[in-house]
Amino acid sequence: MGGPMAKNLLDAGHKLVVHDVFREAVVDLKELGAATAATPREIASTASVIITMLPSSPNVKEVYCGENGILSTVKPGSLLIDTSTIEPAVAQEVCELVRGKESRFLDAPVSGGVTAAKGATLTFMVGGEEAGYEQAEQILKNMGKNVIHTGPSGTGQAAKICNNLLLAVSMIGVSEASNLAIRLGLEPEMIAKVINSSSGRCWSSDTYNPCPGIIEGIPSSNNYQGGFASQLMAKDLGLAQNAATVTKTPTPLGSLAHQIYRMMCNDGYDQLDFSSVFQFLKKENK
Amino acid sequence: MGGPMAKNLLDAGHKLVVHDVFREAVVDLKELGAATAATPREIASTASVIITMLPSSPNVKEVYCGENGILSTVKPGSLLIDTSTIEPAVAQEVCELVRGKESRFLDAPVSGGVTAAKGATLTFMVGGEEAGYEQAEQILKNMGKNVIHTGPSGTGQAAKICNNLLLAVSMIGVSEASNLAIRLGLEPEMIAKVINSSSGRCWSSDTYNPCPGIIEGIPSSNNYQGGFASQLMAKDLGLAQNAATVTKTPTPLGSLAHQIYRMMCNDGYDQLDFSSVFQFLKKENK
Amino acid sequence: MGGPMAKNLLDAGHKLVVHDVFREAVVDLKELGAATAATPREIASTASVIITMLPSSPNVKEVYCGENGILSTVKPGSLLIDTSTIEPAVAQEVCELVRGKESRFLDAPVSGGVTAAKGATLTFMVGGEEAGYEQAEQILKNMGKNVIHTGPSGTGQAAKICNNLLLAVSMIGVSEASNLAIRLGLEPEMIAKVINSSSGRCWSSDTYNPCPGIIEGIPSSNNYQGGFASQLMAKDLGLAQNAATVTKTPTPLGSLAHQIYRMMCNDGYDQLDFSSVFQFLKKENK
Amino acid sequence: MGGPMAKNLLDAGHKLVVHDVFREAVVDLKELGAATAATPREIASTASVIITMLPSSPNVKEVYCGENGILSTVKPGSLLIDTSTIEPAVAQEVCELVRGKESRFLDAPVSGGVTAAKGATLTFMVGGEEAGYEQAEQILKNMGKNVIHTGPSGTGQAAKICNNLLLAVSMIGVSEASNLAIRLGLEPEMIAKVINSSSGRCWSSDTYNPCPGIIEGIPSSNNYQGGFASQLMAKDLGLAQNAATVTKTPTPLGSLAHQIYRMMCNDGYDQLDFSSVFQFLKKENK
Repeated sequence: MGGPMAKNLLDAGHKLVVHDVFREAVVDLKELGAATAATPREIASTASVIITMLPSSPNVKEVYCGENGILSTVKPGSLLIDTSTIEPAVAQEVCELVRGKESRFLDAPVSGGVTAAKGATLTFMVGGEEAGYEQAEQILKNMGKNVIHTGPSGTGQAAKICNNLLLAVSMIGVSEASNLAIRLGLEPEMIAKVINSSSGRCWSSDTYNPCPGIIEGIPSSNNYQGGFASQLMAKDLGLAQNAATVTKTPTPLGSLAHQIYRMMCNDGYDQLDFSSVFQFLKKENK
Repeated sequence: MGGPMAKNLLDAGHKLVVHDVFREAVVDLKELGAATAATPREIASTASVIITMLPSSPNVKEVYCGENGILSTVKPGSLLIDTSTIEPAVAQEVCELVRGKESRFLDAPVSGGVTAAKGATLTFMVGGEEAGYEQAEQILKNMGKNVIHTGPSGTGQAAKICNNLLLAVSMIGVSEASNLAIRLGLEPEMIAKVINSSSGRCWSSDTYNPCPGIIEGIPSSNNYQGGFASQLMAKDLGLAQNAATVTKTPTPLGSLAHQIYRMMCNDGYDQLDFSSVFQFLKKENK
Repeated sequence: MGGPMAKNLLDAGHKLVVHDVFREAVVDLKELGAATAATPREIASTASVIITMLPSSPNVKEVYCGENGILSTVKPGSLLIDTSTIEPAVAQEVCELVRGKESRFLDAPVSGGVTAAKGATLTFMVGGEEAGYEQAEQILKNMGKNVIHTGPSGTGQAAKICNNLLLAVSMIGVSEASNLAIRLGLEPEMIAKVINSSSGRCWSSDTYNPCPGIIEGIPSSNNYQGGFASQLMAKDLGLAQNAATVTKTPTPLGSLAHQIYRMMCNDGYDQLDFSSVFQFLKKENK
Repeated sequence: MGGPMAKNLLDAGHKLVVHDVFREAVVDLKELGAATAATPREIASTASVIITMLPSSPNVKEVYCGENGILSTVKPGSLLIDTSTIEPAVAQEVCELVRGKESRFLDAPVSGGVTAAKGATLTFMVGGEEAGYEQAEQILKNMGKNVIHTGPSGTGQAAKICNNLLLAVSMIGVSEASNLAIRLGLEPEMIAKVINSSSGRCWSSDTYNPCPGIIEGIPSSNNYQGGFASQLMAKDLGLAQNAATVTKTPTPLGSLAHQIYRMMCNDGYDQLDFSSVFQFLKKENK
């Protein structure tokens, strides 16, 4: 994700210093004119606006608070924007530490995936103070189409995982409804048509239908290649589960959706797009 | 439901003979010019197009196959349209019996509720033979906006219950996501805005949001009065469950949604609109 | 099941007239001295005590109420005992019809499987009137070890499916707890030992542990061969689900257990013992 | 919990130095001859065997690793035993830190509740090195009846939470089966009798039956007072959920059980014994 996002910043005329633990990941950017650094620490000693995109909470902690982390050298008055999807509580914790360094921190997870990263059409859900948000808005607009200020620190992450909880529930719901309808004698196109013109209508049905052949150009019509992998959905549902446990919020369907994606990952669907739950539930014993 | 539907037929110039086990239910129609009959049997002895709207499978069996039922006097060449929501298998069974009387039967359940019945904006999902559908289409258009031929006998019912399974799952999903987001610090309007512009978008969020005050003029902004009662949703989910069991189709979320609506009904939410699941899950221990 | 049960009755000195739609099924019994009949109707015209063992509700309806069924010729004062596992409501319905013939009907489903049928160690859960139960008790004791009078008509079936609902829930629970413990570093024997001496103790752990090698001589230590097939468990959970829907009783775990066994059957576990859910949940992506 | 456990150690002739953040909690122990300390740090500077009993993971981290924590003054060669129920990963983390201080750490959560703590009949599930276990065994036997060495560090916690996951699942299962059976016409005593002599048999049915009046002297026969509060069960199920997420282990029923206890707590059952789930599911709409 980080690569195409950085390219869009370069295209917009920004000067970049980039770092990735996998050196090959920045070769392209170097050729396009970006400088490179050996550690986050090194970047923080020169840059005053830093954007991070990392796989999970522990990585964010390491990159910000580790020995070679950003906070070891960050200059007062810096703006730090983390676009990873992590636990809201960790985002808030890092935000506090950044405040202690007289700098600003925003949690700004994205939706849209690699395609949207390339096309600069990502949606950013941004949590943090108003002043920081105003400073960040134009920068983020170089990489995305929608930039939403969701509220105080942590709410960007909260918005992201709550949307994805609902997304998983809807996708499994569409898959169950479609499978049942087909076994009851409806054509796949017909049940999609009925749902899309009724109260069951949703993005998982009208834009990203999991049944092959209903909509062209999406993963379900391409053997579930590309898109948003089931294992990433399982990860996000795990974050939602943790947040629900901490806040004592009942999320019965979100919790069961989490379990279903865990089972799918263990059954070999981990790299397939998350809409492949249609196939997972469609299995039939002959 | 039957009352406003009949009025629309009268308005369109059709002659009607009506019957209801509760006599008061047809007083209005009588004043508007409808004839009345004491039994379904009596109606079938004179009318050649008969429309039924009944609460559940056993009532349909009684009205069609009972001692005073339609089949006891139905004339060959009649068209029988059942707009109740019942088990697809029962619809198919009745269809077979009607065929034995040299007449046609369609299962044509509706969506839209009483409001749509009054406004003649119902959606009809119609299962049955092409010829019967063609004959029925104009008649149904007097009562509804969308008339969809879903396929062979039983598929009208199948389409209806599959849509409602997805609707229940979506509504609970929106409620869980909204509750969790609010407890994580988002404003209710903000999580709705994020969802409606992201992949979680669905009818239950953008048209019928369960959180009070987000959308005016719907049950959630009116103490969950009116709309589609939780007990009716529980009934439809029970039909979906039976159909899933018979066809051996796994529907984990639909099944859990069924259980949640059962718990709600037992907890006093039975008469409230089904979007009140937001309140059911929102309970907090002080 | 019917074969070994009949042999035990022959061994006890009873005279039998037997029937099965598959004629080969009664060849052994014929050699052992049983008479045979072509239809249930034929049996009912001569015998005054009739025992049936059938796969599911529709078969019971056919054998009792069909054209060649028992009720077409049953003599007043007969005792009819159905040992099938079927819907409680169907048992009650048949009971009413039998009463109309001035005879007695008991629902008497069994637990214990083929092994217990051979060894005459079945448990019979018997629903129906006291007088009928007293007449049946000695006969059933020729085939089983425990004969329990559970209450009025239908309660034998109710007791059976409620026990099996709990059994499925416990078995999945033991499987989840064992898998989780093993992944957290415990030896399989150790988690079994802890559970069996703690509050998690249950038949599914101390007598029929699903983890291979913990207990010898049971299906889990024999590649899940023999025992009680997952598809039969799925069937019983479907009956429990129907009964719960009709009585509006929430059974969230029983309902999810049903869905899990449906998924297992569709994934090729249908013929394996129901304890194979341990393997189904244990799958791991390498 | 800590109070009665300490008394049993005093009774056995051990010398104690005790500390609790609530000073009143140690008044009794002081009268019985225990010395007191102001902080864990102070205790660690004198004692070489230290036992902790704390509410949750953050408290354990604070008491061991905080400014006034045990590790700030612990002497090499000490034995530290934590009897709290916490996350296995936190136990392993603390164990590592203790090792760095050349001392030994055991995770030794208990089952049995306050009653067993008073009667010295607790079960200890002990994770950690063999040498530490051997040193701890006799000490723990002063407070408990069963002391089980479950394996390496963290496995004591793992065993505890896996048992409790199964316990919750069983208890809800017994409640569902009993409620359904009662609504189908069985007497509460009868369904308990059937289950206890069949494959549904479990501790939650034969020892701690949730239906009032079946077994005397337990919470269900005393308005669900005493026992193990629903909110503690919710906490343990949250720990199990976290452990399952981290290890990517599917636990569908355990996860749903967690959600049910969350809903119960929010509905006012938080202080009632966890067997009150029978009442929560039994609600009926009149």
